[in-house]
Amino acid sequence: MLSKIDHLGIAVKSIDEAVPYYEKVLGLKCEGREEVPSQKVRTAFFDIGGVHIELLEPTSPDSPIAKFLEKNPAGGIHHLALATDNLEADLKNAADNGVRLIDETGRPGAGNKTIAFLHPKSTMGVLTEFCQPNKDGGCCCGGH
Amino acid sequence: MLSKIDHLGIAVKSIDEAVPYYEKVLGLKCEGREEVPSQKVRTAFFDIGGVHIELLEPTSPDSPIAKFLEKNPAGGIHHLALATDNLEADLKNAADNGVRLIDETGRPGAGNKTIAFLHPKSTMGVLTEFCQPNKDGGCCCGGH
Repeated sequence: MLSKIDHLGIAVKSIDEAVPYYEKVLGLKCEGREEVPSQKVRTAFFDIGGVHIELLEPTSPDSPIAKFLEKNPAGGIHHLALATDNLEADLKNAADNGVRLIDETGRPGAGNKTIAFLHPKSTMGVLTEFCQPNKDGGCCCGGH
Repeated sequence: MLSKIDHLGIAVKSIDEAVPYYEKVLGLKCEGREEVPSQKVRTAFFDIGGVHIELLEPTSPDSPIAKFLEKNPAGGIHHLALATDNLEADLKNAADNGVRLIDETGRPGAGNKTIAFLHPKSTMGVLTEFCQPNKDGGCCCGGH
């Protein structure tokens, strides 16, 4: 079951340029930074009321985030991640309802979570991630 | 101070087509529908873990949502709304930090709230709304 928004993934050209906006204008605290080589991004994350904002900066021109920035040069919200306590059941339910899955089954994500993406063609344009903390814990942030 | 994400505004071509996805695939309950003539949209809203997802369908070709859909025909996340307990102070702080404001001061929004938008050119591409419930109460949803 999907219980909450885990995080919003926000594409930015430069984390160093974006962090002051999130800190000074929005008053949020940067909780950490992380590089995720598998996704070719570096990230910085913030908490606001129990939901994470995850800034994503590409580290390579073939990063998915670089492609997003080609279409949206200013940056923007890249994906919506929803927390689940049963990823496989929610994926099966989505598929049973005709949703096209990018990931047919969960795969390891950052932050000690298992994640899967739904295809935005099936979700009315919103790239949507389901994510579940692994049983041995799991940080509440950084699930790409 | 900004305390939480109040809602995500998601542009859709058709609320009637979108609602079954949110209900059946994401398992959320549609809490209500509302038409907002001033913004030329009709909305449907859902709660997920205390954050609202607000679907926005244009009711006129010159609705801001219609313009968004011209650029993003599939739909997508239109804006991020953050709840504040002091809208004017947060707007002043934003302006003091060089942020361009769409609304220099709060204006009435739906759901008995006062709202103001920051310009996405100053927020790295994320159209951002600050919203504050009015003192005589205010529903936690529908703040456009």
